Amino acid sequence: MSDHRTYKKLELVGSSTNSIEDAISNAIAECSKSVKNVEWFEVMETRGHIVDGKVAHFQVTVKIGFRVEGS
Amino acid sequence: MSDHRTYKKLELVGSSTNSIEDAISNAIAECSKSVKNVEWFEVMETRGHIVDGKVAHFQVTVKIGFRVEGS
Amino acid sequence: MSDHRTYKKLELVGSSTNSIEDAISNAIAECSKSVKNVEWFEVMETRGHIVDGKVAHFQVTVKIGFRVEGS
Amino acid sequence: MSDHRTYKKLELVGSSTNSIEDAISNAIAECSKSVKNVEWFEVMETRGHIVDGKVAHFQVTVKIGFRVEGS
Amino acid sequence: MSDHRTYKKLELVGSSTNSIEDAISNAIAECSKSVKNVEWFEVMETRGHIVDGKVAHFQVTVKIGFRVEGS
Amino acid sequence: MSDHRTYKKLELVGSSTNSIEDAISNAIAECSKSVKNVEWFEVMETRGHIVDGKVAHFQVTVKIGFRVEGS
Amino acid sequence: MSDHRTYKKLELVGSSTNSIEDAISNAIAECSKSVKNVEWFEVMETRGHIVDGKVAHFQVTVKIGFRVEGS
Amino acid sequence: MSDHRTYKKLELVGSSTNSIEDAISNAIAECSKSVKNVEWFEVMETRGHIVDGKVAHFQVTVKIGFRVEGS
Amino acid sequence: MSDHRTYKKLELVGSSTNSIEDAISNAIAECSKSVKNVEWFEVMETRGHIVDGKVAHFQVTVKIGFRVEGS
Amino acid sequence: MSDHRTYKKLELVGSSTNSIEDAISNAIAECSKSVKNVEWFEVMETRGHIVDGKVAHFQVTVKIGFRVEGS
Amino acid sequence: MSDHRTYKKLELVGSSTNSIEDAISNAIAECSKSVKNVEWFEVMETRGHIVDGKVAHFQVTVKIGFRVEGS
Amino acid sequence: MSDHRTYKKLELVGSSTNSIEDAISNAIAECSKSVKNVEWFEVMETRGHIVDGKVAHFQVTVKIGFRVEGS
Repeated sequence: MSDHRTYKKLELVGSSTNSIEDAISNAIAECSKSVKNVEWFEVMETRGHIVDGKVAHFQVTVKIGFRVEGS
Repeated sequence: MSDHRTYKKLELVGSSTNSIEDAISNAIAECSKSVKNVEWFEVMETRGHIVDGKVAHFQVTVKIGFRVEGS
Repeated sequence: MSDHRTYKKLELVGSSTNSIEDAISNAIAECSKSVKNVEWFEVMETRGHIVDGKVAHFQVTVKIGFRVEGS
Repeated sequence: MSDHRTYKKLELVGSSTNSIEDAISNAIAECSKSVKNVEWFEVMETRGHIVDGKVAHFQVTVKIGFRVEGS
Repeated sequence: MSDHRTYKKLELVGSSTNSIEDAISNAIAECSKSVKNVEWFEVMETRGHIVDGKVAHFQVTVKIGFRVEGS
Repeated sequence: MSDHRTYKKLELVGSSTNSIEDAISNAIAECSKSVKNVEWFEVMETRGHIVDGKVAHFQVTVKIGFRVEGS
Repeated sequence: MSDHRTYKKLELVGSSTNSIEDAISNAIAECSKSVKNVEWFEVMETRGHIVDGKVAHFQVTVKIGFRVEGS
Repeated sequence: MSDHRTYKKLELVGSSTNSIEDAISNAIAECSKSVKNVEWFEVMETRGHIVDGKVAHFQVTVKIGFRVEGS
Repeated sequence: MSDHRTYKKLELVGSSTNSIEDAISNAIAECSKSVKNVEWFEVMETRGHIVDGKVAHFQVTVKIGFRVEGS
Repeated sequence: MSDHRTYKKLELVGSSTNSIEDAISNAIAECSKSVKNVEWFEVMETRGHIVDGKVAHFQVTVKIGFRVEGS
Repeated sequence: MSDHRTYKKLELVGSSTNSIEDAISNAIAECSKSVKNVEWFEVMETRGHIVDGKVAHFQVTVKIGFRVEGS
Repeated sequence: MSDHRTYKKLELVGSSTNSIEDAISNAIAECSKSVKNVEWFEVMETRGHIVDGKVAHFQVTVKIGFRVEGS
């Protein structure tokens, strides 16, 4: 491992019928299926769909940062 | 219904003593009293009042989008 | 008390293993230990640490406003 | 008419299967059905839906400014 | 009155031949003709027209917030 | 398919000698060669190269959103 | 005094029933009671309270810069 | 004169010991000495110098727009 | 020619009754009358005038970059 | 090769104990291990870790653009 | 030490006749004289003074984050 | 010399094969060939070209401020 690690950020949109926190967690869980060394997230945007005057889905755009393997 | 729907966005501030999600839902519920075809929201700002060192109200500014009737 | 109060804003980062709301409340509680007349907060940024594919800490940057003593 | 006119801005999302300009024009046409003295627009956001690898709709958010009647 | 008031923001452009403050006041006065419970404003943009090398009109875009009746 | 779909955004720059719309379409077409379930785009930046006082290429940066397979 | 002075910025909200300039001046006056070497300000936000369709207070958020003593 | 006028924007910083409006006017007056057809301004930034706990100069950055001669 | 070229950006507003692309081209054409080595443009803002419920002019603010002669 | 090349941007965070330039170079070097046709970078954010009152690592977030193979 | 640490950010402007990195380091060194647990910095703005056509001082505005004692 | 000096800002892009500081200095040096009273710069954007996986040129966009002659 070098002394100058490199990280990469991916941009995902997680959704949840329940809460902003769950939408974030769902995006991270999905990302972790294919990427290792996931270390942090940054919320970029919070929005959602409305059905019958109620929030149907919270949709949270997050950037997820992970260390590049080998760096 | 035409093939080029038009939407309008209104900007509301919902509040809640409980959570950010409830503040969003309260704004949407209020908006739905007078507007039809409400379809989505976008969070613009999250802030709140503090009383005695505790959050008294979460205040969330949302833009709420609805389809213009007849479009 | 003058008729033109002055307020000051401090920028803090609260954290919580549980929710965004708790991270905000923790920052406000910490701030209130040393500052009086705390009146409002504004969320600037929401991010967090990830461990084993799960949110380990929500980290919420808030500006906290308080009235300057004597103003 | 006073010497200090007041204007109001509405935020609409126009759509078109054809072009960004048509999406703008459609929003303006819809707005002009119910509002008089429409004078200018400002593009806020350009996005769209994709179906089968092609743009299905351009969706352009515009602020539309009109003079308040009587001002 | 519920314990979770909702507010709405309108975006207006006030103008004045005299000052930025007057342009703001003119927008608020116009808005107050048709809306109740007007509580605050936020300046979004300050610009103006120039004639013969002098400011002819200050034009100030403000968001004006009012409590939704019944909330 | 779960009830909380996850989306990913990629950032591409499409170019066209002809129009902004074509630059967007070219980016989407290229993206669709390797990614399924492409659903929307957001224009981030419009710029271009100039040769001999004429636009040689429109270059449009878009974020393209697609549903993560299996989510 | 070193050849590489350091400055610090504080964020205050000044208010005035009269004008934006007075709100700025009031924030600076308050700040100068407890801080030396105050050198510049930057306006961050202009807003205010409305009572009976008139501006009750202009509230101007300013960053105020001062040289750190000894630097 | 063609039917598609072109405008140019210059960025100036006007200053005044008195008010924000005077700082704007001073920038415009200076600009008008060397440029014709000056039509509008946009305020970009408001800041200033402080001496002895008082505003010594308001410094307002404006973009000033003028029609390009012959267009 | 040195190995560290310097570029300058000018800010222009092009207009067209027809399209956003034409407004951009008109600004570039006007700029090229007096400036050499024009190499690129960046769209900053898209807006326009409305007459009788139709777009009368698209007005596109562009920054136009050119290499400084001799650099 | 078509006449309308498409580019993709990746977002990386490079780090260096030494300088901002080295942090940028490290991100680019890491990216070039797996991606061809890397053509440009854009600095998005500069930050870093502090240990014992000294910068331990500069961390620079860059977007890195490369031409999509075959476009 | 609680399980929900709180951090505070201060905004400083460091300067250096030499480099951006030195300006950052000078701000951090000055801050560390009076604050413990300094952990990270974020660059907000880079500017400087020019004398005789040369950079006299780089001035870098940084936010510096430290853990609140006891949190 | 009046008591209300006016400044003008020009936007340049300096480049350097070596460092961000040199790119800034090169832009200032070029600007100083044709403009007097150059007093400050503000960094707007840092980017660059990449060749063979290495930074070929740092390109730094700066606004350069100078006092208008006679003001």
